Amino acid sequence: VKIIVLGSAAGGGVPQWNCCCPVCRLAWAGDPRVAPRTQSGLAVSADGRHWILLNASPDLRQQILATPALRPAGPGRTSPIEAVLLTNGELDHVAGLLSLRERQPLCLLATAPTFAALDANPLFRALDRELVARGLLHPEEPVDLLGLRLLPFMVPGKVPLYQEGASQEGVALGEETEQVLGLEISDGGRRCLYVPNCAKITPALCRRLAGADLLFFDGTTFSDNEMLRLGLSSKTAARMGHVAMDGDGGSLAGLAAVPVGRRVYLHLNNSNPVLVEGSDERVLVEAAGWEIAHDGMELAL
Amino acid sequence: VKIIVLGSAAGGGVPQWNCCCPVCRLAWAGDPRVAPRTQSGLAVSADGRHWILLNASPDLRQQILATPALRPAGPGRTSPIEAVLLTNGELDHVAGLLSLRERQPLCLLATAPTFAALDANPLFRALDRELVARGLLHPEEPVDLLGLRLLPFMVPGKVPLYQEGASQEGVALGEETEQVLGLEISDGGRRCLYVPNCAKITPALCRRLAGADLLFFDGTTFSDNEMLRLGLSSKTAARMGHVAMDGDGGSLAGLAAVPVGRRVYLHLNNSNPVLVEGSDERVLVEAAGWEIAHDGMELAL
Repeated sequence: VKIIVLGSAAGGGVPQWNCCCPVCRLAWAGDPRVAPRTQSGLAVSADGRHWILLNASPDLRQQILATPALRPAGPGRTSPIEAVLLTNGELDHVAGLLSLRERQPLCLLATAPTFAALDANPLFRALDRELVARGLLHPEEPVDLLGLRLLPFMVPGKVPLYQEGASQEGVALGEETEQVLGLEISDGGRRCLYVPNCAKITPALCRRLAGADLLFFDGTTFSDNEMLRLGLSSKTAARMGHVAMDGDGGSLAGLAAVPVGRRVYLHLNNSNPVLVEGSDERVLVEAAGWEIAHDGMELAL
Repeated sequence: VKIIVLGSAAGGGVPQWNCCCPVCRLAWAGDPRVAPRTQSGLAVSADGRHWILLNASPDLRQQILATPALRPAGPGRTSPIEAVLLTNGELDHVAGLLSLRERQPLCLLATAPTFAALDANPLFRALDRELVARGLLHPEEPVDLLGLRLLPFMVPGKVPLYQEGASQEGVALGEETEQVLGLEISDGGRRCLYVPNCAKITPALCRRLAGADLLFFDGTTFSDNEMLRLGLSSKTAARMGHVAMDGDGGSLAGLAAVPVGRRVYLHLNNSNPVLVEGSDERVLVEAAGWEIAHDGMELAL
């Protein structure tokens, strides 16, 4: 199984267009300690010729241009991208679908509520329904596609931000629903677990991840209140549907005892100090055995 | 008046993610005759400090990162981008709004049908209505903003592609409606005309453009049937709401007698052979007094 990290940042990317937080300031200044990062997504393939995108970030066009494996081979209009799987309906995971228009056959995989979120937006009619087949994902039902077995499962999360009403009603914060998926990717042998959004570490999740050869996990924030503290948001990470790395309920502590071959944080928000190479937080996280994903990172199972 | 071309290509950009047409093939190969181009948009400013975006392409995040004048000055979250004006509701002009989220005060200017097109998509709720003020544009009613006078006017066009039904009903092909605007930008003295979409050269349009110091005009295709001929689409340029450069009804002939200080084609589709420096079509267009816009092009009035 070949895996390319197309984008390693959370919504907004690094730097974010309007942000001068400490990490973004370094990125704007071109400081070599902070690599620029586009928004979150992976490409996976069994053979290196037929590719499945896991999520479609707003930066997808730029990501495809930066990734030789994803360039069209010709003649005419064609692409080695044959499918896209969405793990949720958040903007940073679906807006890139708008860059996959232009009369290209594709297979789009998502759960019923995520398809419903797309269908509520006429913009996505730009993907011609006659050319873009749909595969409905059901938690715990594996899909065999292009030589890979994809097993979706529910993780604690919430509805997409743009679907939240004025009240908290329907946000279903931290519940497991079909709104937010994790994904196991395997070729029958080795297992990669992809969990870009996760609001809470649960015993069931730990059992699921145990023994994985490779884990990609939600690294949005280092501490639960960092966006509040920096004045960037009025919300904690938990309120945004993400478990922080640090702290009692955090992923560092919560996943420490879970045996995993290689563990990689991705979906990193620009507020997260681990984005600065050599920072105290980066050193701490690396000492705990974690890697920090970067754009263009290639891995193999 | 300062003007920066953020993106000079039509929808899809150059190269387009899935395209191996002759122009895209050269772009994928890194041929120096074809500069890569992102999707269409301008930034304009009276003072070089406060900027108005004209349209918001799907590549907007990448365009802001590439444009020092548009970087945030800090502290915290702030941006020199203070307003966005939409000339229509097509995907290549509005999807970039999704990259302007993250709690930033902005003024958004569009006509009623374009606001209605946005409002039909819950995704755009990502732009917080409490922070993003709206200014309703009416054809022929000038707006004074940040030291510039912006005068919108209707041009022949059509509804956004994603709003077209299965039938031709409501497409209003080539009619002047509030769906498609041109824009005159001035500081009271010199005049820049911005017409990125135009389905037909009319006597009224020629009168409007006459005497402009600078004209940006729809350069989507060279010939009306080039996308059909290349097997890229089943539609002519006219059917897509664009007048071709070449031919009897084309913009080269139709605007030849209209006096303009400097004339620049933008919104260039990847099928257009003028994108290849030194091509017969490029030579012909340049001999007729036209420039071909490129990303990062800076102009002043």
